[in-house]
Amino acid sequence: MIVVVDSGSSVLEELQRVNERDSAVQAWVARHSDEDIIEASTTPRGGPLTGWTLGVKDVINTYDLPTERGSPIYAGNRPTEDAACVALAREAGALVTGKTVTTEFALFTPNVTKNPHDLNRTPGGSSSGSAAAVADGQVRSAFGTQTVGSVIRPAAFCGVVGFKPTRELLPMAGVATLSHSFDSVGWFTRNVADCATMFRSLTAGATTGGSFQGKIGRYLSHQWKAAAPETATVVDHSCSELTNAGIEVVDVEPQPHLELVFDAANTILHYEIFRVFAWERTHHFDLISDLVQRMLVKAEAIGLDEYLSAQATLRSAQEAHDEFMNASGFDALLTPSAPGEAPSIETTGDSVFNRVWTSLGVPTVHLPVTSGPSGLPLGIQLVGQRWSDQRLLTSAGLAESSFGHAQ
Amino acid sequence: MIVVVDSGSSVLEELQRVNERDSAVQAWVARHSDEDIIEASTTPRGGPLTGWTLGVKDVINTYDLPTERGSPIYAGNRPTEDAACVALAREAGALVTGKTVTTEFALFTPNVTKNPHDLNRTPGGSSSGSAAAVADGQVRSAFGTQTVGSVIRPAAFCGVVGFKPTRELLPMAGVATLSHSFDSVGWFTRNVADCATMFRSLTAGATTGGSFQGKIGRYLSHQWKAAAPETATVVDHSCSELTNAGIEVVDVEPQPHLELVFDAANTILHYEIFRVFAWERTHHFDLISDLVQRMLVKAEAIGLDEYLSAQATLRSAQEAHDEFMNASGFDALLTPSAPGEAPSIETTGDSVFNRVWTSLGVPTVHLPVTSGPSGLPLGIQLVGQRWSDQRLLTSAGLAESSFGHAQ
Repeated sequence: MIVVVDSGSSVLEELQRVNERDSAVQAWVARHSDEDIIEASTTPRGGPLTGWTLGVKDVINTYDLPTERGSPIYAGNRPTEDAACVALAREAGALVTGKTVTTEFALFTPNVTKNPHDLNRTPGGSSSGSAAAVADGQVRSAFGTQTVGSVIRPAAFCGVVGFKPTRELLPMAGVATLSHSFDSVGWFTRNVADCATMFRSLTAGATTGGSFQGKIGRYLSHQWKAAAPETATVVDHSCSELTNAGIEVVDVEPQPHLELVFDAANTILHYEIFRVFAWERTHHFDLISDLVQRMLVKAEAIGLDEYLSAQATLRSAQEAHDEFMNASGFDALLTPSAPGEAPSIETTGDSVFNRVWTSLGVPTVHLPVTSGPSGLPLGIQLVGQRWSDQRLLTSAGLAESSFGHAQ
Repeated sequence: MIVVVDSGSSVLEELQRVNERDSAVQAWVARHSDEDIIEASTTPRGGPLTGWTLGVKDVINTYDLPTERGSPIYAGNRPTEDAACVALAREAGALVTGKTVTTEFALFTPNVTKNPHDLNRTPGGSSSGSAAAVADGQVRSAFGTQTVGSVIRPAAFCGVVGFKPTRELLPMAGVATLSHSFDSVGWFTRNVADCATMFRSLTAGATTGGSFQGKIGRYLSHQWKAAAPETATVVDHSCSELTNAGIEVVDVEPQPHLELVFDAANTILHYEIFRVFAWERTHHFDLISDLVQRMLVKAEAIGLDEYLSAQATLRSAQEAHDEFMNASGFDALLTPSAPGEAPSIETTGDSVFNRVWTSLGVPTVHLPVTSGPSGLPLGIQLVGQRWSDQRLLTSAGLAESSFGHAQ
């Protein structure tokens, strides 16, 4: 019995892939047994995700598997219920096969997962296992979360499509909070069509149209000095392909209204994290990693006035950015996803090209484009406007076609 | 041994009050034993909430007591951790004595709690037990949540101070989601000084200053036709007292920019609730009350386009309201908290005077003022500007003094 799924692989092929590769890639914290997955995959379902396997980042609650948040504090933690996004995906027909490795609390300390393209490289973080499992063909799609760069960065390093919707479009019910001003659910797929099907399943929204204008801004950003040479190359190459496909690409200088967002976001993040982790701090400080302990201790110094001032800076930037995007008529900004190819496994990589966009609450998508000097995936990020996720997905679909390698 | 707390009552007096009144008022779902509470109250603590007892609405996670969300679906549900707000309050010295009765999922179906001023009347909802327990002297303060009117309304009906901060000022980590665009944690106290101490404990922010100008807008709103005669009286009386205290009170016509918010908020709420409760819908529909079942069935019809349109309406109103408040120089708007005195126990009362403000994300506080024709509490609502919670608390303190009966 072969259960064929639309992407060209099958549940049995995915299971075989897990069995061959799991000890090397280590994308999973907990999985249902192969027998249970096969059994469930033959149960008739309805909905646009019928036949899809789905991984769930281990900061997202599931009623049938533990949710340990990458921390020994939550070892064996068994939520009563599914997170809303998981229940919606199951309602649409998806089959949850397991929980994927996250960094501790979706922060920055590397966990066990390896980049499937090179086991000495990081898959990125914090949604490490989700990105790696999709990239390695072990699952059709997987949920991640993004507070700074935790979907786009691992998507870039693993060479898959990663999507983070407009903040607050999807409920965070049942998803562990990191920084409530910035947290979003997102997901990984191997192509834009699958990404759009996930979107449709979760929102009941169409994914065609969205008033696409055919105009994209090439935006190198205030953080451009962090870009490796291969990143400049992939941005240039992508813009050429878009131009060849008939899309207008306009160079945009780093915008003054975005200059202060990077630091303001950091202040907000730290003020909130100190409070969000009040229970973990006060009950289990010794079970928190050294890096995160240090961050928490430092974060205590940020007072309410400093936080409110950073929130005001962010708000002004959000308003100015809405005006800028409306006035420019851009469907999206094209900008780097990450500094370059995946670095070695000592870190999860740098989120320098993600923080501003996540903080603005805008939707953003990573698209694989080519490979870099070490043969590892390289791609670009398209950044849309708040609440215009459908327009961004339309842009992403056209961009993917112009790059000529939708999987 | 008498453990004296600052508000003039003591832990032992509160325990005695619970023992005398619990069978009538029924504010608690779960409590620690008297022995454990007395034992814990003698343990040395630090922080501004030292000596305070605290009730926690049963949609808010606690590691040491179940969290059942007012639903048989969550019977016996035991979270691993405290919600962030609870852990912060404990860190500041508060002693959690128990979990308070909530309506099912913090929605509208009445639960067992009675109004302590008249057992045939509702305490209001959804934070029914928290408001009733504070009003009845069974606890010093209690957490609630507000998505429409679930803090301000029960505060009004029970005659206590109720505060809902700017949305997103406090983390919702560990608090059950209802509608993520609107949910906030809030709290009940018997006076503004205690309310401000809670604020300081949770935010590390000062509660003096906040650039108070001495100018308040009297705002009857587009919903004024729902107000009972005694509500008009208490609004007039409050404004006279404020004027007597040297505060400038200015009449404000219902503002055009707020006209569409009421309906837009309803659309957003329903679209989100359908998704937030995906797991409960798909796994335990039969354990959901008839009223909520009907709401969920109806909510499915709202599509993404309608939701996005309502979000756009709300966003415009938020921006226009910020401009209006900045231009007017008002410290707060004074407006009804509820249509009138607490109605009978068949409902939790009408949130008609709360929905617009909650949807805008602004901070709001209920202040008791007098009693109505049936001898039940009446008061007013002060509504501040987003992120200006400290200014609102300053206004509330001065207003309370002008009303002449801080407890």
